[in-house]
Parts: sequence; C-alpha cells; structure tokens
Amino acid sequence: MSADARSTTRLPRNPGSQTALRQRNQQRIVETLLNAGPLTQAELSRHTGLSTATVSNLVKIMSDGGLVSTAPTTSSGRRATSVRLNSKGAVAVGIDVGRTHVRVVIASLGYRIIAERSIRLPLGHLAVDGVRAAAELLRGLLADSGLPESAVVGAGVGIPGPIDSRTGTVIQGAILPEWVGINILEMLEEALGVPVYVDNDANLGALAQVTWGAHNAVEDLIFVKIGSGIGAGLVLGGSPYYGNIGITGEIGHATISEQGLICRCGNRGCLETVASTAIMIELLSRGAPAPITTEDIIRQARAKDSATLRVIDDAGQAVGRAVANVANLLNPEVIVVGGPLAELGEILLEPIRRGLIRHAVPAIGETTHLVMSSMGNRAEALGGAALVFQHQGISSALSTEASA
Amino acid sequence: MSADARSTTRLPRNPGSQTALRQRNQQRIVETLLNAGPLTQAELSRHTGLSTATVSNLVKIMSDGGLVSTAPTTSSGRRATSVRLNSKGAVAVGIDVGRTHVRVVIASLGYRIIAERSIRLPLGHLAVDGVRAAAELLRGLLADSGLPESAVVGAGVGIPGPIDSRTGTVIQGAILPEWVGINILEMLEEALGVPVYVDNDANLGALAQVTWGAHNAVEDLIFVKIGSGIGAGLVLGGSPYYGNIGITGEIGHATISEQGLICRCGNRGCLETVASTAIMIELLSRGAPAPITTEDIIRQARAKDSATLRVIDDAGQAVGRAVANVANLLNPEVIVVGGPLAELGEILLEPIRRGLIRHAVPAIGETTHLVMSSMGNRAEALGGAALVFQHQGISSALSTEASA
Repeated sequence: MSADARSTTRLPRNPGSQTALRQRNQQRIVETLLNAGPLTQAELSRHTGLSTATVSNLVKIMSDGGLVSTAPTTSSGRRATSVRLNSKGAVAVGIDVGRTHVRVVIASLGYRIIAERSIRLPLGHLAVDGVRAAAELLRGLLADSGLPESAVVGAGVGIPGPIDSRTGTVIQGAILPEWVGINILEMLEEALGVPVYVDNDANLGALAQVTWGAHNAVEDLIFVKIGSGIGAGLVLGGSPYYGNIGITGEIGHATISEQGLICRCGNRGCLETVASTAIMIELLSRGAPAPITTEDIIRQARAKDSATLRVIDDAGQAVGRAVANVANLLNPEVIVVGGPLAELGEILLEPIRRGLIRHAVPAIGETTHLVMSSMGNRAEALGGAALVFQHQGISSALSTEASA
Repeated sequence: MSADARSTTRLPRNPGSQTALRQRNQQRIVETLLNAGPLTQAELSRHTGLSTATVSNLVKIMSDGGLVSTAPTTSSGRRATSVRLNSKGAVAVGIDVGRTHVRVVIASLGYRIIAERSIRLPLGHLAVDGVRAAAELLRGLLADSGLPESAVVGAGVGIPGPIDSRTGTVIQGAILPEWVGINILEMLEEALGVPVYVDNDANLGALAQVTWGAHNAVEDLIFVKIGSGIGAGLVLGGSPYYGNIGITGEIGHATISEQGLICRCGNRGCLETVASTAIMIELLSRGAPAPITTEDIIRQARAKDSATLRVIDDAGQAVGRAVANVANLLNPEVIVVGGPLAELGEILLEPIRRGLIRHAVPAIGETTHLVMSSMGNRAEALGGAALVFQHQGISSALSTEASA
C-alpha cells in the first residue's frame, strides 16, 4: 500500500485513475468470491467480465497482501488456479480514543469480533499517551488471540474531533485540546506498525451503523453523537462522506440562539451551548457542591427528576431543530442518535423527534426514521474496523454478506 | 432503456447489480474512446481490462442506442471492428421550466450548444401548458438544426420545486402550486417522445456548474438559488445527490427566526420568509401603488437606494447563516449563488459572505469558496442536458474532455 493511499481519511476520488480502476476491479473480485465462494481464475473472469490477464494480475496482488490465497486445481480436466478469500488470516483493527478511554477491537473479514478490550485514561492525557496505550492493548489482544502482527491489514482509528484531511492533523475544535496540531496519522502508524486510517468518531459511528449495525442496506444515514460536543457522521450514497478538507458534520456549531452563550469555537449560541452533556452538567450542577456526571443525568432522569427532564427536553428539541436542517438538506433515510445518553431511549429521543417534525419540511419529517443507537459505546471502534475494509475496497461486499 | 432506469431522478445505486455493472463498463468504454479516439474492439478490451466478449456486447448495445458507430477495418492484417463515438449524431436536450418561462437547449455529446430558445409563459400556467410549450420549442429547434428526433438521447427537465423520486410527482412546496400532484415525468415523456429525467432546478444549477461551468474538477459543490423560493442543489463526490426520496437542498425552510412570519411550508420564520425575492418585494413595495419587480430591486440597489440595500443586506446575512450550516455539515469546496439577483454581484455576495464567516466553524469559513454564478439564466437548462449525460453514464468522461 502506498503512503498516499493511506494518508488520512480520503478515499480515491478520480474515477479515471489507474489506482481507482484497480480498486474497483479488486472490489468486484472480492464481491464475487464472497457471493460464489472459491472460484478458478477463469471462472472469476467470466463472473466479473474482466479479462483473464486482469484477473491474474489482481489475484497476485491480493494474494501478496494476504487478502486471498490460491491453490492449484483442475477444471474440465485442465490445470487451473483456485482462488479463495482469506477470512481468518486477515484481520482489521478498530480503535476508539475518547476523552478518558481507549478501546481496541480486532475483527475478521467476515465482520466477526475476534477480540476486544478497553481501558480508562486520565482526562487531559497527551496524544502520545493515548497512542501508546492503544498500541499496548493491540499487542496484548493479538498475543491472546494467537494472531501474528502481519495478519493485521490495517487499523481504523476514531478521534473525537475534526481532522484536516490535507495534513492528517487534529484541528481546533477537538474535544481533546491536547491533541490539536498533532499529526495523529504519523504518530499512530509509527506506534502500531500497520497502515492506519484516521477519522472522527461521529463518522465512524455512522459507518458502524451501515456495516455492523441494523441499517445495513441504508444508503444515506446520519449518525448524531451527543456528548461533551455534538457532531454528525455522514454516510451518503453508501460511503462515508468527507467533503473538501475532511471537516464535516459540525452540527454542534449550528447557531440556535443569536444572543446565546459563547461557544468554544468562538461563535455564539451554537447547538453545543444548549444541548451538549457539558452544558447539561453545568445547568444541573448549579449550587451543588461538585459537578454531577453523565451517569447522574441518566439516573436522575430515570427517577423523573423534573429539572433533569426539563434540561433533557430543551436539549432534545434543540438537537431536533438542528437535525431538521440536516434532514431538509440531505434527506437521509435514517438518523441514528448515539453517545453517552443513548441509554435514555425515548426520554431523549422524543423531544428530538418533536424538534425534527416541528422544523422539517413535512414530507421530510414524515419519512425520516429517527432511532437511538443500539451499539452502545462500541460503535466507534467497530466503525474503525469497517473503515479499514472500506479502504481495502471490500466494504460493500462485506456489508452484502452481513445482510444476507 | 427500461422504464425503471429512467423513472425520476435516481441514479442506479446498487453497485452489485447487473445494470450498474453494465453502466460502469459502458462508461469506461466511452471514457476510453474520448481519451484515445476510435479504437478496435480488441484495443478497447486491452485499454479497459474488460473481456472481448463484454466489449463486443456493450458496443452492440451502444451502437443500437446511437452512442457509437462501428465500421469494419483491419488490424495487424486481420479483420477487426473499429468503434467511434457519435459526437454529432447524438444530442441531449435541456429544458428549464420556471414560473413564467420555458427554455430549451440542444447540446452535443461534446458539451457544445447546438440550439437554444426560450419563451415567456403566463404566471400560474398549468403543467400541461408548460409541457406543450416545451415540446413545441423542441420540435422547432430540431427542425431548424436539421436534426431528426431520433438523434435525441434524452431530455433533462428542471422544475422549480421538489419532486418525489418514489412517484415522479411534484410535491407540496413547489413554486408552481398548479403543478403539485402532477406526474410530471409521465406527462413529459408522452409529449416529448424521448427518455426524460426530471430534477429540481437547484440540482440542475449545481450540475451545470461542475459540467459546463467554471468548476469542472470540483467534487463537492453547493448551488444556492435565491428566487421566489430558496433552494440548494448538491453535487457530492462528483455526482448529483438525491437522498432517500429525492427531496434535498431545502435550505429555504431552515428556521432563522423562531417567532418570524408563517411560511408557505407551514413552519415559522423559515429562511424564505426573510430572504426570498418574494419577501424583498413585499418589504420594498409597502405603501407603493403596485408591487415592484425583481428588476426594480436590481435597479434600485445599483442606484444605492438605502432601503433596498438594507433589505438585500439583511437577506444576504440570513442566507449566509443558512449557508454556514450547510458548509459546517458538508464542507463543500465551492458554494455558487445563483438566481435572478445574481447580477447584483458583490452587493448581494458580500453580506452572504459575512453571514457565512460569522456562523461557520473557522476552518470551514476560511476555506470555502463563495462565488456568484456566471451562467445567468441558462444554468438550469444546461444542467438538464448534463443530467442526460449523467444518466447515460458518460458524464465524467465529458467533463474530462471539457476541462482538457
């Protein structure tokens, strides 16, 4: 894999380039093998419409990369080469770095979790500490699973903040201010020793929904993560969407109240100043000896504490208004709400739905499915593993298999 | 072409389907012929990596459809078939239907305008009248150009309102209320007698910018049309984006003022209630014997009438705020502003830019190019012709040619 192909978050875009052409053809071969099982090279040529020379070249590349294995066989009495997918030999790693945790999963080509572990990190940890912790977790998991490091085809890493796809650095606005300006891609590749793809956590949450999650056949899905910050991940036309420089889904900075509080982005009255867990904690801790926690919010809401329910209701409606703008613009089939408050279920979802219907164009409000994420705190790491498959050009094949 | 493939606005989505596969392969052949000139079938096979059988099948289909022509030739002393693109024989039609006009253009495969004409229609005209006028214009243009009707590979038609891609009907919210509920696709196909693709005018404006316009290599572009209504057209990842049911870009209904005017959509304080030409006319006609026109607004602004400049400034800032939300979400490379006020240039663009920078995340505000459309009132019709090429699977090839 070239350095260029794995630098940052961007998928090959130029449909006419040789790399993109090869990737499309490779994807077609993987799809065919997933659907039909092992085939000879001649059969692969007939199934895909590719020439035998093209198939032979690509199988060689994929075999060198550990994606497929080949074996001599006979077909109609003639010598032939049988090609099969390596569903065990090759694994992808998903890593989720939060403000106070790192989670690592190892997944097979067939979207099965082979191993998984998470640890807590101190608030305000440095990038180098988070990366070192991730690398140690990964080495431990590989050893426990009896997998060599060479089996790892890549690692997809989620960061809670925007990443400039031109430079691979975490930029201003990240929930991890200690990470801003760090070239996280280079640091991770050095520590992990495998090809790395970096993305922000909301994008990986969205990708997880359409690969591992319940929304497998969905082409256009928005994942809204409500946490210390608020961000959206976009899957459009079946693929993660990154825009021009990789900073997308910044709905946390939609202006909700012109004369509202000053936001950490420098603007005023942003959605985050009325609906993040940070502002909920601030509002509900007023006069208390110490700040409450996110877990306290969930507990108090379940105990029907009226102030807590009011704060959640106001926050939910504001999120609903921002989400209505997103739905009016992009007309997604599904909007999934995630983050640490997801377990509140309808308590949080109902005011969001009310805001969505109040502010969306009627035909959009009526047809957009709004649901809570059911993947808990694993969504981002699972999305990280899926990101590796996306970059290896085998994503749609695997989601096809998973939905079958 | 099957009825399904041309019904409404949706491009084939399932990458694994036989139709999508054939379309990708066909596009590859067209691209190759555009880049390399006429080739034999054997050469096409080598250039594309497709098998000779696949090439032969596709050339037959494309020849029957008038896209290519074939001739016997010899290659290395053996009989062969030479394949060339029909750049003159095949033309696409673009049609733009507004509140008070119809415009028809005929374009060649090489993105040249062969003929063009527009007429005025009475405000409140029925769909059937608009369609009849378009069909008469088209027949006249074909006759004048000496082109047979069989040369038309398709017509792309822009409608000023959302179209439900599930049914092909114009839905509530259209600027042409007389058209709501009409199956515009069926009506057009019957009147024109060619494959028809329908889209809303803002989408076609966006498509025109990345095909005929100055933004040829741009992958992610938003076209914002400010008129009686306000809508956005989206080109994402190089292709028009349609979402789940085809209703996208409804930024005119972003809530700007919670307690503002009631909007025709049934919500309150939508962008259209503070920034459309309809509200500008209403504000500036107060106390006048008769309503002013859009042309009056342009004239008065150029004469530095202070009330007119204030109305434009307020409208522009509100559009800028809505556009900032779009940019925060989608991170487009370019945002193009069009519609009847486009000739105001910086007078309108400056307050929009101010609103964008005020409300966007800093990295987005700094890197998003905001420009006025330079295509005048032709953008939508040119986008209609480009839509035909998109559906015929030859778009990226032609935009490559146009930019070369």
